[in-house]
Amino acid sequence: MGLIVQKYGGTSLANDDLIFSAAKKVINDYIKGNNVIVVVSAQGNLTDRLIYKSKEINKSSSKREIDVLISAGEQISAALMAMAIESLGYPVVSLLGWQAGIKCSSVYGNATISKIDTTRLQKELDKKNIIVVAGFQGINKYGDVTTLGRGGSDTSAIGIASTLNADICKIYTDVDGVYTADPHYVKNAVKLDQISYDEMLSLATSGAKVLNNRAVEIGKKHSVVIEVLSSFSEKPGTIVKESSNMEKRIVSGITKNDNLTLISVFDLEDETDLNFKLFSKLSSKNIDIDSVLQNTLKNGKRDISFTIKNEDRSDCIKIIENYLKSFDSSAKTVVKENITKISTVGAAMAGHPGVLAKIFEALYTSQIDIFSSSSSEIKVTVVVDKKDGEEAVRAIHDVFF
Amino acid sequence: MGLIVQKYGGTSLANDDLIFSAAKKVINDYIKGNNVIVVVSAQGNLTDRLIYKSKEINKSSSKREIDVLISAGEQISAALMAMAIESLGYPVVSLLGWQAGIKCSSVYGNATISKIDTTRLQKELDKKNIIVVAGFQGINKYGDVTTLGRGGSDTSAIGIASTLNADICKIYTDVDGVYTADPHYVKNAVKLDQISYDEMLSLATSGAKVLNNRAVEIGKKHSVVIEVLSSFSEKPGTIVKESSNMEKRIVSGITKNDNLTLISVFDLEDETDLNFKLFSKLSSKNIDIDSVLQNTLKNGKRDISFTIKNEDRSDCIKIIENYLKSFDSSAKTVVKENITKISTVGAAMAGHPGVLAKIFEALYTSQIDIFSSSSSEIKVTVVVDKKDGEEAVRAIHDVFF
Repeated sequence: MGLIVQKYGGTSLANDDLIFSAAKKVINDYIKGNNVIVVVSAQGNLTDRLIYKSKEINKSSSKREIDVLISAGEQISAALMAMAIESLGYPVVSLLGWQAGIKCSSVYGNATISKIDTTRLQKELDKKNIIVVAGFQGINKYGDVTTLGRGGSDTSAIGIASTLNADICKIYTDVDGVYTADPHYVKNAVKLDQISYDEMLSLATSGAKVLNNRAVEIGKKHSVVIEVLSSFSEKPGTIVKESSNMEKRIVSGITKNDNLTLISVFDLEDETDLNFKLFSKLSSKNIDIDSVLQNTLKNGKRDISFTIKNEDRSDCIKIIENYLKSFDSSAKTVVKENITKISTVGAAMAGHPGVLAKIFEALYTSQIDIFSSSSSEIKVTVVVDKKDGEEAVRAIHDVFF
Repeated sequence: MGLIVQKYGGTSLANDDLIFSAAKKVINDYIKGNNVIVVVSAQGNLTDRLIYKSKEINKSSSKREIDVLISAGEQISAALMAMAIESLGYPVVSLLGWQAGIKCSSVYGNATISKIDTTRLQKELDKKNIIVVAGFQGINKYGDVTTLGRGGSDTSAIGIASTLNADICKIYTDVDGVYTADPHYVKNAVKLDQISYDEMLSLATSGAKVLNNRAVEIGKKHSVVIEVLSSFSEKPGTIVKESSNMEKRIVSGITKNDNLTLISVFDLEDETDLNFKLFSKLSSKNIDIDSVLQNTLKNGKRDISFTIKNEDRSDCIKIIENYLKSFDSSAKTVVKENITKISTVGAAMAGHPGVLAKIFEALYTSQIDIFSSSSSEIKVTVVVDKKDGEEAVRAIHDVFF
């Protein structure tokens, strides 16, 4: 007896049979006496198809109108899911983002949830209605529909779960949990029973697509117990929660992030604010920089390297060159295309100084060149050539599992 | 310089080219210094496809959820139209029914507009934005999305035009105006330049599909000048407005309504409330009865006949027979399937008593049997066999045009 939030992604709702299979999981929790709120994504690749449609009309539509367009996808899913639950004989009501009280920031296409007004949700729960909420969408202060960015339905679900103090937020997806590495190319990858928010966060931001990282952050902040599990099986999944009661693993997972470019700026003159200015110029153009490495000063100059997405490459190079020209810098930019970032994540890594050495040894043994590397308390990142990516994950995985 | 409301139906928005063609008509009015509000329907047959989708999941979905589902169709159109106008370089904003302040009754699937709160519309007009409104939808007192029934986008458009005192409401469709008869089978049918609300109303309720009858009623009540015109040409259409300044035509149009069943109840005992009870039983099951004829009393009994839609036939017969059984009536029910109702409409008909005779003569000359007939101030209705329908319209049309 409690409140359970469930969330289904697009592949879990791609056809009628899948919608019914999800509806039955909803009812299973409901008939045990729980209140159930279901958050749904758009079916299959509908969001992509709608975006394609918009590009046919206008290659540079305003993000406001794109949000109006694509939010129709979750609206359709919400209605169909409610219809399936109705046909199985249970009381249900669907709510769109604005009806579910999901208030968010005004960044069209990538809003964050600022508040959830639970008036309507609570009213429907009091009536013992199952509630289907259209995920990925909310309403901003102008009264406009805004979407929460890709993976935003996770955020909707975990946001609702946290605001209503749900007992658990079950994220149904097409994999049956969080693995130590991608089972598609790491044969002996192991499913984890539990993982901490910080580990999950490191995995999510490092390319594990199982859970949206912003959603994990909200979960962590409000201690929402999250379960990642498959909509295609009945097996338990992976529980994400506070790590206090877990045995801390040295390494919990290894992820790979492809299609990145490594940019290095060598011999940049050391004025106090040059790096800062460069990075703020890049971020003002929405270029996501990651894995920043900045060497210590040598002869009044220093080397900086970072990774960006391949698609940002030409913009990024242009910005850097214009910037360097602006003060007649003698620095040189070196671009390494198509690299892969391998992240090794583990909550207890900090207490085990041998991790970095083991990773380096594994890659050396496999004859894989490391272009750059960095480490934080719970993560070691190495950048390698894209062709070596899968082999590098396997080599590191073999050392720890 | 004024306010123009335009409305585009689904066939006028079925593909990208058509959306752009409509967008250009919008901009044409805008660049002349007018404010422009565009109301859009769902593209092509999208509404039907969504309803088909819902039937796959649940044959008897609640109307509330069907409304959530199908209102996504107009949402998609509104966004795409806004994108097209954006790409042509004009300021535009799309609004869904609830954003445009369209408050309506709670009859899901067939709501009526109760009020339009113009706050948001006025705000966008003040900014000189073109406004695209998703037609066919509003919000009820529970904060739920409700649709206005088929043809409801006409109602949205004329409702907005009347509330904001628009100078004209242009209904763009796939015909270029209102004709004296359907040009598909009446070769010499003539397009009318003007028509009165009452005539239009009689034509609309009698099967002319060019304009929704509820929309015409709103137009009449608030004296909104309506123009019915083609989205595929630049020609002027038919103006619908108060008839005071028009020469009253004896006959303005002849319409045909197919797929009806004629039900006759012969020798019904004359208790004061029997007819009333029968009709209220039928209407409580949402069976639409029309063209009711009730003969005068003969030997304490009377005959009643009326038409219903073919699809309501078996329900209707069951209700009548149960009703007759309930008081051991000796009345007999006679069912005539697949009949056609021909309506001849004209504002000045009342002053010209020869109209009925002319119609009867035309049908007699063409050897068409009349099953029943009735007349009101501006309309004569005759019921004939479906196979004679088109010939009957041609015969009557030839007499008056």
